[in-house]
Amino acid sequence: MSKPKPQILKGFRDFLPRQMLLRQRVLGIIRDVFEKHGFEPIETPTIEYLEILTGKAGENEKLMYQFEDQGERAVGLRYDLTVPLARFVAMHQNDLVMPFKRYHIAPVWRADKPQRGRFREFWQCDADIVGSASMLADAEAIAVMAEALAAIGLVNAEILINHRALLQSLGHLAGMRDEQAGTLFRSIDKLDKIGPGAVTRELIETGVSEDAASRVLELISASGSADELLDQAGRDLAGVTGAEKPLRDLRELMDYLVDLGVPENAYRLDFSLARGLDYYTGPVFEAVVKEPKIGSVGGAGRYDGLVGTFLGRDIPATGMSLGIERILEVIQQFDLLESPPSVAQAFMVSLPKTLADAGHLARELREQGLRVDLSVLSNRSLGEQLKYADRRGIPLAIIPGEDEIARGKVSIKDLKTGEQVECDLTVLAEELRRLLNGPVETTPVAGDSMGQAG
Amino acid sequence: MSKPKPQILKGFRDFLPRQMLLRQRVLGIIRDVFEKHGFEPIETPTIEYLEILTGKAGENEKLMYQFEDQGERAVGLRYDLTVPLARFVAMHQNDLVMPFKRYHIAPVWRADKPQRGRFREFWQCDADIVGSASMLADAEAIAVMAEALAAIGLVNAEILINHRALLQSLGHLAGMRDEQAGTLFRSIDKLDKIGPGAVTRELIETGVSEDAASRVLELISASGSADELLDQAGRDLAGVTGAEKPLRDLRELMDYLVDLGVPENAYRLDFSLARGLDYYTGPVFEAVVKEPKIGSVGGAGRYDGLVGTFLGRDIPATGMSLGIERILEVIQQFDLLESPPSVAQAFMVSLPKTLADAGHLARELREQGLRVDLSVLSNRSLGEQLKYADRRGIPLAIIPGEDEIARGKVSIKDLKTGEQVECDLTVLAEELRRLLNGPVETTPVAGDSMGQAG
Repeated sequence: MSKPKPQILKGFRDFLPRQMLLRQRVLGIIRDVFEKHGFEPIETPTIEYLEILTGKAGENEKLMYQFEDQGERAVGLRYDLTVPLARFVAMHQNDLVMPFKRYHIAPVWRADKPQRGRFREFWQCDADIVGSASMLADAEAIAVMAEALAAIGLVNAEILINHRALLQSLGHLAGMRDEQAGTLFRSIDKLDKIGPGAVTRELIETGVSEDAASRVLELISASGSADELLDQAGRDLAGVTGAEKPLRDLRELMDYLVDLGVPENAYRLDFSLARGLDYYTGPVFEAVVKEPKIGSVGGAGRYDGLVGTFLGRDIPATGMSLGIERILEVIQQFDLLESPPSVAQAFMVSLPKTLADAGHLARELREQGLRVDLSVLSNRSLGEQLKYADRRGIPLAIIPGEDEIARGKVSIKDLKTGEQVECDLTVLAEELRRLLNGPVETTPVAGDSMGQAG
Repeated sequence: MSKPKPQILKGFRDFLPRQMLLRQRVLGIIRDVFEKHGFEPIETPTIEYLEILTGKAGENEKLMYQFEDQGERAVGLRYDLTVPLARFVAMHQNDLVMPFKRYHIAPVWRADKPQRGRFREFWQCDADIVGSASMLADAEAIAVMAEALAAIGLVNAEILINHRALLQSLGHLAGMRDEQAGTLFRSIDKLDKIGPGAVTRELIETGVSEDAASRVLELISASGSADELLDQAGRDLAGVTGAEKPLRDLRELMDYLVDLGVPENAYRLDFSLARGLDYYTGPVFEAVVKEPKIGSVGGAGRYDGLVGTFLGRDIPATGMSLGIERILEVIQQFDLLESPPSVAQAFMVSLPKTLADAGHLARELREQGLRVDLSVLSNRSLGEQLKYADRRGIPLAIIPGEDEIARGKVSIKDLKTGEQVECDLTVLAEELRRLLNGPVETTPVAGDSMGQAG
């Protein structure tokens, strides 16, 4: 049999240790923020009945990985984490306490055309609150999102906030029927890119009166505090069908965000936010990072119609989803989080005559919380072993020389500077920690787990 | 469109928060042990070219989830983590430092008949050392396995050790050709179940002489220290083709295990271990838990032929794999690890008049490391909110009463005992910690991450 060429499918990725350490760290930080807020973890199957998955995907159905399994069932790989949540809530409603706060960090698959930053297998980090219609739940989703973004170093992220029904009212203001809303939303969404003049022209081309178009433009390009914006919208949309509820919602939401202590610069009302509205029914939000220029790193909003799909009744729900892949690229590119090259903090050299000492010493150091790689190269020279450790990026090497061990000591070598010191065995762990906290980087490589809090 | 029935495929599972918290904790502990030993994390794609995946599976190929993707490529879901490792090493050999120590904790898929404890989607925890032929690497794999099993509470686990080539020598002792070895291994493997008499009869039925059969039986059922067993094998197999190398390997391995300080009762030489030998070439090991009666919870060994498959040359490799699903069932059944019912440690009641205080207080407590769920039920009564928190299993509730807040205080209610105390805001975090460490359980719900060690 000829050997197949070692390769992977386009749009899929291997992660080498260094990349993986950063991924684990970022996912750990996000998980920690979710758990700090009391969101509970769940997991669902990778493969589900196709009819379950296609519930909401609509035009995206062709991007779903689907096939017949060995039992000739039509199945697919999950496309997002929201449809599985709806199915989960329907199946386990008797075991869940409502409002149900859950988070789900897991890969999803889309047979999309691969391109820079877009993959066929990628992870999503979702946190949702199911069973609450309160704007306090939306505020909590935004609070969690802001906190997660800040925790992973994206301190300039800004969460833009709008309301699905307010956009629809804008359509009414422009004299459009609800069915034409899509056109309006697409034009509005381009405001940042093409400017107010071009958007106005687009609107007029689709039949909006000049006067109405300019009133829409005035509102979506207005700037000011949330209060000022909501006052202006109140005036502009006075008497327009369906405008009262979204304005009331947004006022409440803005008040709650202040109550929750979300930093003022972390969010902003933006009536021109009109993207990805598919199934949203209330407030919508999108996290944008302008510096460094990344664009959208996640979004979400309220979707009161979806979770109840399988139950045949509406269940209010709101939440947020972070697109971790784009975030990770930026963190790597701009070095926003330190990432050690190796998981090990110290390399224990294996010398034939002191191997038992080395083995027991490594064990004791691990029991004291240090990550110690015991060399398997006992048949190589000291120099070769040190070179190996350095190539792996391990910062410190412990050399248990025979004479030193006899005197209750070992040598510690800093593999970056080449400096070597002798250290008493009784204080070895402390000395290693001191050296790791010194010039050598000692950033945690995985996210702090919540386990430490109790 | 009619609503599809909410259901999942047989052999697949949803994990509710409480199960998920235990899974995360166990996987976190195992990950921590791997990292403490310097094994580096990697990740590989879920979906790979089918020709890559079928390299080794052999008769198991029919159990592989396979399909044609949108580009009409024959693809499959990974069946284990070892074949992807071989492909990974071949593709990234220039970026890896050999010996390469990697761990991989991830799901795999098998279209197997679902039955108790056997699933179509399940997680594996693998740690391997690629590029070292030293028995020290095998000893390290056993050390890591023993430590992981002890860390998750399976303190009675015993790792049985044998050697593939020693079993082959037993075949030679019995006068069998190498092609007949499979029959021999299957008989030997039944020793525990059917006893020495029945095994002897089976061997004789397959053409082994009575004398040879009794010599095989004597050796595989021998008990004693590693030294005694190896001495006996040395005598019994003197002059038998291929017996020298495995005996030398095992002597070395046993010495290394002592050097590494692996507890004596954590492993045992067992010449009757003859399971799942497919691609092993050296020492083989299997972790068995007798009390509680679980049977095999993982295994592995040396496989010098596999990793090099895609490179057309042998690359020595050894490692271990833990079958996490069976372990988790047992941990749950026998309550080996505490698992909190809720991720949140405290529930912050939302009262309309003190909502801003509640929000800011929750934020401060989280910054101090506590997991605080802010109630989204601000429109419900205090009693209803407390009932909700209790149903979720959150141990403590914080009640920010208007009068109390005015005096710089809040109430803390223990939702299990019903006891309520007033607490000064300046010492709230400390008081919550004290209460959590008291009668209320405060076990970490996720595994301790390595991040803490630096």
